[in-house]
Amino acid sequence: MRVGIVGAHSTKYELRSEREAWELLGEAVQGVLSSVEKGIGGEDIDFVLVSNFSDRFGGILHTAPYVVSLLGRTSAKGARVENACASGGTALYLAWSMVRAGLARNVLVVGYEKMSHQPTAMEANEVLMAAGHPDEIVVGAPFVSLYALIAKAYMDSYGATEEDLALVAVKNHENGLRNPLAAMRRRITVEDVLRSPYISWPLKLYDSSLISDGAAAVVVSADPKRFTDTPVYIEGMGLAHDAPGVFERPDITEFRAMRLAAEEAFRISGLSIKDVHVLEVHDAFTVAELIAYEMLGLARRGEGARLLREGIVMFDGEKPVNPSGGLKSKGHPIGATGVGMVAEIFWQLRGEAGSRQVKGAERGLVENHGGTGGTVVVAVFSR
Amino acid sequence: MRVGIVGAHSTKYELRSEREAWELLGEAVQGVLSSVEKGIGGEDIDFVLVSNFSDRFGGILHTAPYVVSLLGRTSAKGARVENACASGGTALYLAWSMVRAGLARNVLVVGYEKMSHQPTAMEANEVLMAAGHPDEIVVGAPFVSLYALIAKAYMDSYGATEEDLALVAVKNHENGLRNPLAAMRRRITVEDVLRSPYISWPLKLYDSSLISDGAAAVVVSADPKRFTDTPVYIEGMGLAHDAPGVFERPDITEFRAMRLAAEEAFRISGLSIKDVHVLEVHDAFTVAELIAYEMLGLARRGEGARLLREGIVMFDGEKPVNPSGGLKSKGHPIGATGVGMVAEIFWQLRGEAGSRQVKGAERGLVENHGGTGGTVVVAVFSR
Repeated sequence: MRVGIVGAHSTKYELRSEREAWELLGEAVQGVLSSVEKGIGGEDIDFVLVSNFSDRFGGILHTAPYVVSLLGRTSAKGARVENACASGGTALYLAWSMVRAGLARNVLVVGYEKMSHQPTAMEANEVLMAAGHPDEIVVGAPFVSLYALIAKAYMDSYGATEEDLALVAVKNHENGLRNPLAAMRRRITVEDVLRSPYISWPLKLYDSSLISDGAAAVVVSADPKRFTDTPVYIEGMGLAHDAPGVFERPDITEFRAMRLAAEEAFRISGLSIKDVHVLEVHDAFTVAELIAYEMLGLARRGEGARLLREGIVMFDGEKPVNPSGGLKSKGHPIGATGVGMVAEIFWQLRGEAGSRQVKGAERGLVENHGGTGGTVVVAVFSR
Repeated sequence: MRVGIVGAHSTKYELRSEREAWELLGEAVQGVLSSVEKGIGGEDIDFVLVSNFSDRFGGILHTAPYVVSLLGRTSAKGARVENACASGGTALYLAWSMVRAGLARNVLVVGYEKMSHQPTAMEANEVLMAAGHPDEIVVGAPFVSLYALIAKAYMDSYGATEEDLALVAVKNHENGLRNPLAAMRRRITVEDVLRSPYISWPLKLYDSSLISDGAAAVVVSADPKRFTDTPVYIEGMGLAHDAPGVFERPDITEFRAMRLAAEEAFRISGLSIKDVHVLEVHDAFTVAELIAYEMLGLARRGEGARLLREGIVMFDGEKPVNPSGGLKSKGHPIGATGVGMVAEIFWQLRGEAGSRQVKGAERGLVENHGGTGGTVVVAVFSR
């Protein structure tokens, strides 16, 4: 059985949405149903998986029956799923697994987060920190500091520079200019990044992704051709965990779970990184994207930045990464993020990405991770 | 394949635990592994499902990789699952589904909640209310008020009295006296209940379950005899949703999803309510247990209270309900609740329930619901 995605929708990601969380969620649900060319009704959906990180971001829980009710009183079942910033990828992994195993025919996966209710970034940080290891929570280490430890170790081990990190931010902001869904459409230069204030040395303001609001949805189907002539197939997926605490890992410059998840996805799909034409990866902080190149097999260890300097991962390069603008420019409404990445690859592989369309994109990859890599989901798609 | 439960553990439920949420969670994980007679190791677990309602109750998220790390760096995968107060039942439903479908061999289901961090019951109510329909959240209706609407309608429709409701509380507190895991071991009389202060008319303090702390875990296996000579089999399960808002329902005196979930569980198991010897049901408020008798087929509509007056659901009756003390006396740490109910039935069917052992208990039933019945899970077990 080839499991396929038959529809996708994303709200615009916003820094401060005027809409409530349930309105964003509602738009994503109605939007994804409307996006299915041959039509799909609530009665076709037999399972709903809602991806959301924290009720401190949005104020609502028990959203599965709410989404089922939006489908019009069907007999669908549902649950909310959480694995920190990898909640969306995890929901897709479960949807794909359930459809493959015959537990469901058509699964609606919808993710949302409304983060801007928090009065300041410090309060938002406190919520985010709940995704850390308990010992990291006890000492009060925010994620930017944990990623700064990783960045420092990576720079020490491989000679990477702050400018290397900045190149990720500059690329993704450039890409985000082409994306009407992006929360921050602003061109930045390497100098802008280097001059931006340090948050936790060596990471600066512009090394960090955006606290933002948004929702995204896809429908995963056992019978994709029933709903569209141009489905995007899920060729393989992997989900893996690492020790949740940075302090527990023998080498903090690698994301072990990312390597494992990618191996699993490639093994199942029979494809390799060479076969992939476009990628959406989890650039929560710039250093994460650099290391992702290496974990996914695009570059050897320590050589991530070369892909930027040689143009390979740029929009018009051989392997464009984050044509959407990524978490850096498009935004990172936690529960929506992984689902939104899948929506982007869906549009790219169907040739529907407008001015940000990657030419010749026939196969794509999504990498979505939670915490400092305690959970990683990788999915490989083809049209 | 007969899917079985091979081990169970519950912390004592407490009104104010001195332990952090992750310590409660850790005890449940270590405890359930130790409870498996023939031994089970972290490497035997291939999936972890964590049940937890809100990070405002306990301060931690992304707990699946944390639990996997407690298992000793296995290649297990995991996710956290939430469906309000039915989170535990939902996690069990997914575990059972995954094992039946061959997606996993042995699934660890662990639920926890630490609610006493909230300074007052009002703050706890605010968190709980996130499980309501968005329109109920907007108007600020706490659950006790929503259940009061249900109680008022039930009393008007069927002539039930406040004393009928009180009988549920008195029975469950009497049962809780025998349970060392119960948070509030206190004998109460009908007069105590009737004299307790109204919270939301006609519901009083003693009609309400306990804000409490605790964790519980079970292991669900495709190969139960490998791990114990006396597994408890999951003969059938059902999960159903209703419109999440009380205001949306044509008849608020029934829990439609409970009827549907019970029908599904009985159909799959080939059993009926007549075959069940012991039940744990979701007495979040006393009226919910009365209506549960009727939805599960123990009594006709409006005749729930007769089962109490005639002694049928009492500890030494024909169909004992909530021998654990229920949510009323044992406690209701949200994410743990459904899992703890399953642990109780596991012990009852294995004859390990000590002084609260129900005689001749060979088949049992768990009913776990979320919100005002927006999600209901029913499971039928046999030894």
